Amino acid sequence: MILTVTLNTALDITYTVDGLAPHTSHRVGEVTERPGGKGLNVARVLAALGRETVVTGFAGGAVGSVLRGLLAPLGPRDALVPIAGNTRRTIAVVDSVSGDTTQLNEPGPVISPGEWAALLDTYTALLREAGAVALCGSLPPGVHVGAYADLVRRARAAGVPVLLDTSGEPLRRGIAARPDLVKPNADELAGLTGAREPLRAGRDARRRGAHTVVASLGPEGLLATTPDGVWWATPPSPVRGNPTGAGDSAVAALLAGLVDGLPWPRRLAHAVALSAATVLAPAAGEFDRDAYDGLLPLVRVTEHAAAA
Amino acid sequence: MILTVTLNTALDITYTVDGLAPHTSHRVGEVTERPGGKGLNVARVLAALGRETVVTGFAGGAVGSVLRGLLAPLGPRDALVPIAGNTRRTIAVVDSVSGDTTQLNEPGPVISPGEWAALLDTYTALLREAGAVALCGSLPPGVHVGAYADLVRRARAAGVPVLLDTSGEPLRRGIAARPDLVKPNADELAGLTGAREPLRAGRDARRRGAHTVVASLGPEGLLATTPDGVWWATPPSPVRGNPTGAGDSAVAALLAGLVDGLPWPRRLAHAVALSAATVLAPAAGEFDRDAYDGLLPLVRVTEHAAAA
Repeated sequence: MILTVTLNTALDITYTVDGLAPHTSHRVGEVTERPGGKGLNVARVLAALGRETVVTGFAGGAVGSVLRGLLAPLGPRDALVPIAGNTRRTIAVVDSVSGDTTQLNEPGPVISPGEWAALLDTYTALLREAGAVALCGSLPPGVHVGAYADLVRRARAAGVPVLLDTSGEPLRRGIAARPDLVKPNADELAGLTGAREPLRAGRDARRRGAHTVVASLGPEGLLATTPDGVWWATPPSPVRGNPTGAGDSAVAALLAGLVDGLPWPRRLAHAVALSAATVLAPAAGEFDRDAYDGLLPLVRVTEHAAAA
Repeated sequence: MILTVTLNTALDITYTVDGLAPHTSHRVGEVTERPGGKGLNVARVLAALGRETVVTGFAGGAVGSVLRGLLAPLGPRDALVPIAGNTRRTIAVVDSVSGDTTQLNEPGPVISPGEWAALLDTYTALLREAGAVALCGSLPPGVHVGAYADLVRRARAAGVPVLLDTSGEPLRRGIAARPDLVKPNADELAGLTGAREPLRAGRDARRRGAHTVVASLGPEGLLATTPDGVWWATPPSPVRGNPTGAGDSAVAALLAGLVDGLPWPRRLAHAVALSAATVLAPAAGEFDRDAYDGLLPLVRVTEHAAAA
């Protein structure tokens, strides 16, 4: 099975309003709720692809109960660790006139040392059955900034390939623990390395400890800097739609390709096609299966001449 | 005891952000939750004044459970009717830079005919013990627009004085059923009668069926149009602060004064003082007890020469 870790899970709430005007009152049209946090999104996509998936991380309070209730029918096995605090909410206010989104993200509950210890126990036990593990998203208050580095080391000690998808200082610390794969976007990669040029920044991130770096470059696809070479994978044509969840779908495809032992060009083709099929789906975080199948043979993967 | 009815209860959530910029992402600083809906606010104030208070209305789903949990320690007795749907949330986004508030109000759950029938049963049973009843706020989806008229008639049939605090068509229909008291603000009164001048609009609202009309005129106090005369009550000086809940405090004082059989000038003095003490309290919907005691003898009540 594939394990995903989401330390800062969230109930993602979407409101539709007819134009957002600050300092006025709005009647919300439509209200939707879904379980959120990068690792849960990755797990949902993997489950939709027919992969056995387990999620861990934290959930608590009334909001945590709602999140677990919504997660139950979606496929991934729930191994979330209960906490005393209330799981955070995120509110996406979608302006039905312009289509733009205004995001309000709660800070998340404070995790106690005992709760962190319980997560480590659960994680260590789950690693025994895992073919790969993904560590995803931000850290909640109370969790030390080196937490991902700790989780990376435990995965490596257990012989389980580990993908890290986070940003800022948790990414910097996590990379030093030598994860198999990191998947920063262009901004996160530049923030880490100081280099804005992705080819150069990818090489720099490898020197800092990442075995392989797959940088997501938005509409320009993925750039993989691996020990075996450098590849750039791009969709056949620009896709228009809702980019929410596109990065999580890329992570899901990279994990599946890793477990299947696909060569890098194939892994990247799947990741780019699945990511584009997610942008094309009307619901945020879902993917269009026909588009995925149709795009897969059309993704262009080129090997870069420069040494990794 | 005093009964308050809140058909469209809400979990009132407040977010503090450092400036609200549409179409960007915000980290929420502070998150607070409180039971909301006008009738619950009125009941909280009455309970804080030492009055025996019962609340009814609807609550359901995970949000309803949170609301009931937060209500339990506050004083009013919970006689809310359970529903299948999820109680709505309101989100107040307070800009910590400007102090302005942006409001997002969910529409509320749809009430089924069976749930409405259960509310009528509960309401009718509670009327037997009630010294007064207040019907407060908007109607949730599924409840017919003449619902308040029905509740007013039942209170009158039971001999219980009834106060109606709503707006729009539910107010128009409710007034025709001859409530003892309505408490519109200037806009609601103008919407009802077409007259912007409160003295004239108050007389018109009485002709439409309200026994007494107490119009809340914001910083200019209250104007009472009664069968015995017309009174205007104003605070001794303008008060600055958070006006949230000031109208609900006025309703609470009017109910207490009604139950105690105070003469109109005394009722209005209490209502204006309590309302101003609510504006002065730092937390929305709370009141400053010392300010209430201090302001009470200073409220100016003048009788208007014109006949009601």
